[in-house]
Amino acid sequence: MHPLNDMGQLLNLSAYQSRARSLLDPAIWQYLEHGASEEISLRANRTAFNNWDIPTRPLTNVNGGHTRQTLYGQELAHPILLAPIAYQRLFHEQGESASALAACAQGGQLLVSSLASQPLEYIAETSDSNLWFQLYWQGERERTLRLLRRAEAAGYCAIVFTIDAPVKQATLVLPAHIHSVNLESIPPYSAIKSDQSQVFDGWMAHAPTWDDVSWLRQQTQLPLILKGIIHPDDADTALKLGCDGIIVSNHGGRVLDGTPASLTMLPIISQRIAGQIPILFDSGIRNGRDIFKALALGASAVLIGRPYIWGLASAGAMGVAHILRLMRDELEMTMALSGCATLSDINSSKLFSNPSNQP
Amino acid sequence: MHPLNDMGQLLNLSAYQSRARSLLDPAIWQYLEHGASEEISLRANRTAFNNWDIPTRPLTNVNGGHTRQTLYGQELAHPILLAPIAYQRLFHEQGESASALAACAQGGQLLVSSLASQPLEYIAETSDSNLWFQLYWQGERERTLRLLRRAEAAGYCAIVFTIDAPVKQATLVLPAHIHSVNLESIPPYSAIKSDQSQVFDGWMAHAPTWDDVSWLRQQTQLPLILKGIIHPDDADTALKLGCDGIIVSNHGGRVLDGTPASLTMLPIISQRIAGQIPILFDSGIRNGRDIFKALALGASAVLIGRPYIWGLASAGAMGVAHILRLMRDELEMTMALSGCATLSDINSSKLFSNPSNQP
Amino acid sequence: MHPLNDMGQLLNLSAYQSRARSLLDPAIWQYLEHGASEEISLRANRTAFNNWDIPTRPLTNVNGGHTRQTLYGQELAHPILLAPIAYQRLFHEQGESASALAACAQGGQLLVSSLASQPLEYIAETSDSNLWFQLYWQGERERTLRLLRRAEAAGYCAIVFTIDAPVKQATLVLPAHIHSVNLESIPPYSAIKSDQSQVFDGWMAHAPTWDDVSWLRQQTQLPLILKGIIHPDDADTALKLGCDGIIVSNHGGRVLDGTPASLTMLPIISQRIAGQIPILFDSGIRNGRDIFKALALGASAVLIGRPYIWGLASAGAMGVAHILRLMRDELEMTMALSGCATLSDINSSKLFSNPSNQP
Amino acid sequence: MHPLNDMGQLLNLSAYQSRARSLLDPAIWQYLEHGASEEISLRANRTAFNNWDIPTRPLTNVNGGHTRQTLYGQELAHPILLAPIAYQRLFHEQGESASALAACAQGGQLLVSSLASQPLEYIAETSDSNLWFQLYWQGERERTLRLLRRAEAAGYCAIVFTIDAPVKQATLVLPAHIHSVNLESIPPYSAIKSDQSQVFDGWMAHAPTWDDVSWLRQQTQLPLILKGIIHPDDADTALKLGCDGIIVSNHGGRVLDGTPASLTMLPIISQRIAGQIPILFDSGIRNGRDIFKALALGASAVLIGRPYIWGLASAGAMGVAHILRLMRDELEMTMALSGCATLSDINSSKLFSNPSNQP
Repeated sequence: MHPLNDMGQLLNLSAYQSRARSLLDPAIWQYLEHGASEEISLRANRTAFNNWDIPTRPLTNVNGGHTRQTLYGQELAHPILLAPIAYQRLFHEQGESASALAACAQGGQLLVSSLASQPLEYIAETSDSNLWFQLYWQGERERTLRLLRRAEAAGYCAIVFTIDAPVKQATLVLPAHIHSVNLESIPPYSAIKSDQSQVFDGWMAHAPTWDDVSWLRQQTQLPLILKGIIHPDDADTALKLGCDGIIVSNHGGRVLDGTPASLTMLPIISQRIAGQIPILFDSGIRNGRDIFKALALGASAVLIGRPYIWGLASAGAMGVAHILRLMRDELEMTMALSGCATLSDINSSKLFSNPSNQP
Repeated sequence: MHPLNDMGQLLNLSAYQSRARSLLDPAIWQYLEHGASEEISLRANRTAFNNWDIPTRPLTNVNGGHTRQTLYGQELAHPILLAPIAYQRLFHEQGESASALAACAQGGQLLVSSLASQPLEYIAETSDSNLWFQLYWQGERERTLRLLRRAEAAGYCAIVFTIDAPVKQATLVLPAHIHSVNLESIPPYSAIKSDQSQVFDGWMAHAPTWDDVSWLRQQTQLPLILKGIIHPDDADTALKLGCDGIIVSNHGGRVLDGTPASLTMLPIISQRIAGQIPILFDSGIRNGRDIFKALALGASAVLIGRPYIWGLASAGAMGVAHILRLMRDELEMTMALSGCATLSDINSSKLFSNPSNQP
Repeated sequence: MHPLNDMGQLLNLSAYQSRARSLLDPAIWQYLEHGASEEISLRANRTAFNNWDIPTRPLTNVNGGHTRQTLYGQELAHPILLAPIAYQRLFHEQGESASALAACAQGGQLLVSSLASQPLEYIAETSDSNLWFQLYWQGERERTLRLLRRAEAAGYCAIVFTIDAPVKQATLVLPAHIHSVNLESIPPYSAIKSDQSQVFDGWMAHAPTWDDVSWLRQQTQLPLILKGIIHPDDADTALKLGCDGIIVSNHGGRVLDGTPASLTMLPIISQRIAGQIPILFDSGIRNGRDIFKALALGASAVLIGRPYIWGLASAGAMGVAHILRLMRDELEMTMALSGCATLSDINSSKLFSNPSNQP
Repeated sequence: MHPLNDMGQLLNLSAYQSRARSLLDPAIWQYLEHGASEEISLRANRTAFNNWDIPTRPLTNVNGGHTRQTLYGQELAHPILLAPIAYQRLFHEQGESASALAACAQGGQLLVSSLASQPLEYIAETSDSNLWFQLYWQGERERTLRLLRRAEAAGYCAIVFTIDAPVKQATLVLPAHIHSVNLESIPPYSAIKSDQSQVFDGWMAHAPTWDDVSWLRQQTQLPLILKGIIHPDDADTALKLGCDGIIVSNHGGRVLDGTPASLTMLPIISQRIAGQIPILFDSGIRNGRDIFKALALGASAVLIGRPYIWGLASAGAMGVAHILRLMRDELEMTMALSGCATLSDINSSKLFSNPSNQP
């Protein structure tokens, strides 16, 4: 059956997840869904949400409520951004451009990955609004700068610098027609000596440091947002170095297994930042109630990852748009039932801590 | 086999549940049993009871003990009320009238739903005593008032205003012969504009607010009880507005998934109300020990929902009556073994907090 | 195969349990193993042991250690008593006399049930030492006194008065040849009126109270031990009324589901009693490490129930003796590894509280 | 298929574990993997690691980092030692010598068991560096001393005295060609009397005590390390008696079930020792993140047991070396991602306590 013939059955995220699993090559599906090692952090990202309940507050007047806000000068219809997932043509032939189209149509925003499978200029043209660009360190400053300049030239309006994945470990052999079209080929690193460490003397020698963040801060006038903060001290350093925002994230549980759940660290980091710059959040969002909880614990907006890829794989741009709509509808319903008319009404007083609520 | 031929096998709630499942259309069964979304609150409503143990207190003299009390001027033989379940003809052809008959025969009380599938006057005639009427907001004051007046005219003696389900999401297509016979047809709401929210500008624009509670309070001399309180601040507001009682309830986990378990909030609300008005309780009661715990944590009476529908589906009025009898017997046995002769002996000193007691 | 032909395979309790299950009628097996209602207390009796760890203390000199103690004037080789299980001919044709023989051979003690399936005098003759008699209230003082006098005349040397099961609910139809041969037939209670409660006006009207304990205390010079204490206030009352001991027990989780685990209450009760009278313990003991934990938390001795019945069903007296030997060996090994040479070395400092240690 | 033909598939510990299981006799596999009794401590050894999270600390400069340290005068390339597993020819024909070879090749260290299945001199010759010898008490001082002297003569450079397994309970019948070739045959102990305890008067009469540790301390100039400390008081005593180190261990959960997890006790013991002597750790290590956590909680090095035997069984010395390499690589990656360049950077501030993180 053609994927779109029965879209009427795709009523919720779970249906999209099942559909995507049935359509994708098992290796690609595994690449999308997996977490690092034993997947302890992957699971913790989900179960952390169960520590918080949302008491209903009926009879509150929420007439005329909405989910709009301004973020880095952009008017967003809702606080749900699309995370910078790599190689989106793995999931649908229209790849990143379909995601950009959907984000734009739904009044949201796509973060285009450095590892996009389509030219970043092409993706930018897909969207009515200016997109955000996710920057991976390119092993050295010059090469990184050339990628940054190219994103600026293409009209991207914010730079999201991902800091928490210094090493890319190949977990999937990419098909021949899919690759990181936006990146210069990096010359092989000089071989390490026999008594050297592949980790310390090899990979990490090409990883960015806080010095590089200071340097990067001076290279661009665009908002600079650090993605991959999990420790409050690092949030503090980002603030001191002049970053315009942080994304609390453990990379969807894909980097270091046993790192704390993003949601566990969010309130601690939020208390440290104390509203001086926006905090964004990802890792574990699966429905509108999750979004509500992340906002209540200090996030200004959230990124979703795997869920919109389920939409992309199932039905291209239309699928991504539907996922966004489902999540926004559920966020609105959660707000209405908990007595919140606007995003600014959502704060920690709207939650009830319930650590025993684990399944 | 005729349902009644083997009633002898229906020795406990579990047997009734199995019987009902086997007799009902799967879609109707699912409609009865389901909880919202991932059913976190549905499960939490049950597991919350496990946080409390009931130490036995042998050798206490409980001779002549009983479960009687007076509530809103009515003598009740036991503190077990039947919750206002909608469309009871889905479960048995005699519908709400069978439930009313059973409640009356067992010295209890039925709360007749606004969404009853039989005329409220007809149901009222079934019962020797005056029933309670559950009122849903009818989108506006005038229409709501007409329904209230009709209930008053039919002799209902208490009004239970349900506040926690402002939006009815259709989860079941009703059979043609079953509908809400007591409600006026509501004209379609005016369409929302394209940039408006279905939730905020559509549904919630017709939801009741605290102002409507103040208004409603002035419309009737009957006891007015708010059903669906889960936050202590709302309990406080109900008290201040002159309500005669509240029902701590998360609507059986059917409205907002992730709202706290009713039993979790009961002692907090009970402490806030401090005995000034009766507190009733529902969501999660499955046996007499559960009733004992709810009473110990501050409830004057409890509502049961799904369990009596299992009785109704299995054997009509006789099944409902048997469910009530089973629950009351187990409540009495629990009282006797824990050294409580009357309901007033049941308080929090009779429980032992044991948060590690989860299965 | 004859049960004894492969006794070599019965190396541990688990093997005995499997053997017993395979040999017994399923209804009798269910009667033995079941707990009340949802079996929450049955499970809690086991999991409560997991809250305590036993740190090894190697290099301690425990040479010449032993498990002997004097209890109510009797020299016991070990602190493991056989609980008063009813109708033991259900499990083996030699019934209670086999258990008495095994207890005696192993230097322990059997508590003979009022509901024994063999004459109490016959059982007493089986044993070299004087047995303890478990007394159930016989509905009134005179009938109870006659049973007590008969036990005294037969040479029983301690009276264990079980207080926590005022109502016997039939969960098994006894075979024709097995019944409570030691009890007088009790005339039917006078019928309750239609507006009376079966629980309060029927059963509980014939249940013993603290006044009856005071009376019983005056009727005998034998040590009087109350079995079924779960609340510290009741332990206190037992002490004040001159009882010589208590047995902390929730009746193996068979009476009121949701009553706290015996082990949960043991340290609380032990603190209240403060060594003034011996505390015995039952409910949940399945191995020597459990015995060690109960002793460390304040028990002077423990009762085992279902485990020895597995031995009885599998191989009669020899099976019971083997179960006792297995448990004692494991208790000794636990003592040796934790650095305890005698029972008096076992106290709460030998445990490590570890509430997160649940499976 | 020959075991080495598909070594390419042995990419991680889990693959080695599966391979070993498929190659070994089931009884030998069970002997390797089992824990005492109900395996509560075996499981707790693993789950204790989940109580600690490792927050990523990106952007830290860890260039030139390494895992080297000096321990008892030896330069170790990494802190991963091979535990003294008995009878290694059960798992591979090259037995302990293969393990010694692998440890040496990877810059680590093997602890040779008293129960080695090859002559200790032969094993010593396999290795470039001086090995450590694990000493079991030989029932009396003279026999123990002869074994110690033999190890000294063979060039072993540290003595690890295992204190926590005073009784060897046979759980495996050794094949005829495998036995403890390094031990003198011990004459049968004198029979215990009928009223004596096999545990106290038999086995424990030949177990070492703290007096024997004092004596042993005076017999050798080599570093003396006590293996099997689980209680902080015992760590203290070891320190006072002049021991050069301790190994916090519950013997892999193989001795007393219900003893606390090694990792649970490590920080408590570490606080007591306060850096005066090195603390080593074993029981439960299965990956590089576990090693990181043990080091952060106070260990200077860790011992792995079952995992390297999986390597030995799968591919001899090459398998053991690969296991060490996999663990070291993962330790380095964990260090890099958590911002630690050297072992001395790893401390408790690098962990985040998260007791709710259980699966």
